Amino acid sequence: MKRRHSWSWAAACALALLPAAAGSADDDGSPIFGVKLPVGYRDWRLISMAHEAGSLNDIRAVLGNDIAVQAFRDGTRPFPDGAVIARLAYAYVPSEENNAIFGQAQSFVPGAPTNVQLSVKDATRYADTGGWGYGQFEGGKANRSAALMETCAPCHARAPAGDDFVFTHYTP
Amino acid sequence: MKRRHSWSWAAACALALLPAAAGSADDDGSPIFGVKLPVGYRDWRLISMAHEAGSLNDIRAVLGNDIAVQAFRDGTRPFPDGAVIARLAYAYVPSEENNAIFGQAQSFVPGAPTNVQLSVKDATRYADTGGWGYGQFEGGKANRSAALMETCAPCHARAPAGDDFVFTHYTP
Repeated sequence: MKRRHSWSWAAACALALLPAAAGSADDDGSPIFGVKLPVGYRDWRLISMAHEAGSLNDIRAVLGNDIAVQAFRDGTRPFPDGAVIARLAYAYVPSEENNAIFGQAQSFVPGAPTNVQLSVKDATRYADTGGWGYGQFEGGKANRSAALMETCAPCHARAPAGDDFVFTHYTP
Repeated sequence: MKRRHSWSWAAACALALLPAAAGSADDDGSPIFGVKLPVGYRDWRLISMAHEAGSLNDIRAVLGNDIAVQAFRDGTRPFPDGAVIARLAYAYVPSEENNAIFGQAQSFVPGAPTNVQLSVKDATRYADTGGWGYGQFEGGKANRSAALMETCAPCHARAPAGDDFVFTHYTP
């Protein structure tokens, strides 16, 4: 698929020397982007949810901080600086309890958490990656793989530019 | 399946004469229970989510007001009076946009809203239905079918008493 942007990873890597983009945590945040897990993100409002089948096979909630939720509701694109989107994914598992009650296999619920992914908007700091910095967290700790982080922006670059490279749409 | 409770519908129907249990709306709320859709419920925090397959075939978020979320997090059972749980369901549809980007049918997202169901805890007012009053809302308006409302409590009575007749578990 055609890349819409030619993003410089050398420039992006230089960003790792800057302070963390969001919140605080007792680690160094994500490689390349320096994104940390914001305190209280689990209290953020719901943007939407999804089931990703296939190899991921997860069920996920997408939450946003106030700036992100307001932008989704108002249709503001690109997102303002400070918008943070948190994607919380869990194993997609049948609810044996519900299925026993209802007498059929119909209910699928979140199992063990897999990871939390963050998208942090800062058009200046992250200019070389479409204005977004990324992070992935497992058990509250940033995944320290730079190779993993290098996959974020190229994938999001495949989302429509008119959506500011965000896959999720707001669910009313 | 054995009913754990012998709830009096005559008593429950009498509750319809009482004021609404939660929030405000420009209708009379649900039959039997008088539950109205609280203003701002879409801003409530996430309890969990699920995919219900089969004839429902929906994807749903379960949100809670502050009392409900605190009780879920603390494991407080039965839920305190004032706890309100909102289940927002949407058609379960493939994301054609995402699937085109990823090159395979893997992404399922919320489509059109189907309905919102509320569970309102008031151990005194709703003593005859396990302490819970119920309502279903379509397009922001209460479904006025008393027959539909009569199905709520018997179904929830099949959930474990130790869970206070609530199906949903908190997703961390």
